Amino acid sequence: MYGAFVSVISQLAERYGEPYSSFPVGMMRYGAGGAAGSGSLCGALNGSAALIGLFVKKEEDMKLLIDELFLWYEQTELPTYIPERPALDAKIPTSVSNSILCHISVTKWCKMSGNKTFSKQQKERCARLSADTAAKTVELLNAHFAGEFSAAHEFDDEVKTCRSCHTKGSDRSDSRGKMHCRICHSSLAVDHP
Amino acid sequence: MYGAFVSVISQLAERYGEPYSSFPVGMMRYGAGGAAGSGSLCGALNGSAALIGLFVKKEEDMKLLIDELFLWYEQTELPTYIPERPALDAKIPTSVSNSILCHISVTKWCKMSGNKTFSKQQKERCARLSADTAAKTVELLNAHFAGEFSAAHEFDDEVKTCRSCHTKGSDRSDSRGKMHCRICHSSLAVDHP
Repeated sequence: MYGAFVSVISQLAERYGEPYSSFPVGMMRYGAGGAAGSGSLCGALNGSAALIGLFVKKEEDMKLLIDELFLWYEQTELPTYIPERPALDAKIPTSVSNSILCHISVTKWCKMSGNKTFSKQQKERCARLSADTAAKTVELLNAHFAGEFSAAHEFDDEVKTCRSCHTKGSDRSDSRGKMHCRICHSSLAVDHP
Repeated sequence: MYGAFVSVISQLAERYGEPYSSFPVGMMRYGAGGAAGSGSLCGALNGSAALIGLFVKKEEDMKLLIDELFLWYEQTELPTYIPERPALDAKIPTSVSNSILCHISVTKWCKMSGNKTFSKQQKERCARLSADTAAKTVELLNAHFAGEFSAAHEFDDEVKTCRSCHTKGSDRSDSRGKMHCRICHSSLAVDHP
């Protein structure tokens, strides 16, 4: 969270000074590991969503941008960023997380790449992914303020199907959320009663 | 997120003025519904963890306080707060979420109480739960700064068992997180190979 948030705010502080230069960016350290290591919302996304919340006042626009960022993260091979002076001089494998949750994103990458959690490789993967996510956020914000934003990613068909019965506006409306369904509800039949 | 965060910052602004009075609290609106309605980390917890991140500089202390807050939230019948002038003049049932995720916390409450998501009842439940969570956060912060904090909640035995093989320091170390395991991994046998 801190990485994604500070990378943008520090550049604004450098160019414009206040109010960016006195923003207590250190507070964002709580978001690491999906918030204090709990494994919930990926810190890179939490920090990036905080940036969108800071700059986009209209709630509907803010949600559209965050939806797009979260879908991009779920569906993209990450990380792609390679630092000029990498902390770790190794090729970092990429993976598609299918999830905005730290627990799933990190676990999937560790299993796929054969690296351990809390290893130098995993930390480098998450640092590079934070850079990717911050860059994507700036791209989305710039498009929004230029009046050129349009969503490039769609919710998965399964998510649309599940939401058609279970969330806002449906008859049942007993749930809420936009995350992939079967990652947790793995035994669910499509035509379940 | 906004509700929990602003309830504390606005009181500090009232009493002390700057820097609280110019904090851009509106940015925290992104956290509603588990971050833009995604259903991930409960906004009340995200906003409260942000408060802890803002005030507690030592990383180890910050994590201890957030762990305690998250465990309290998972294990407590909520909401308990009753406003002086309730937006909704109805008894709001309580539930134990067993999860820090908005999707699970809200779905469980809706199923248990028979109320729909996005109903007035659900919104009132989440508003009261945000007040409970902000109050608990202030209690934890006050105890911390008085040097009197000690954790009152423990991780579930199952979480301890799973983490003993799957996270930091274990042989396998292929995962991370502190959330309840079987809520999603429902078919997992304890003695799985």
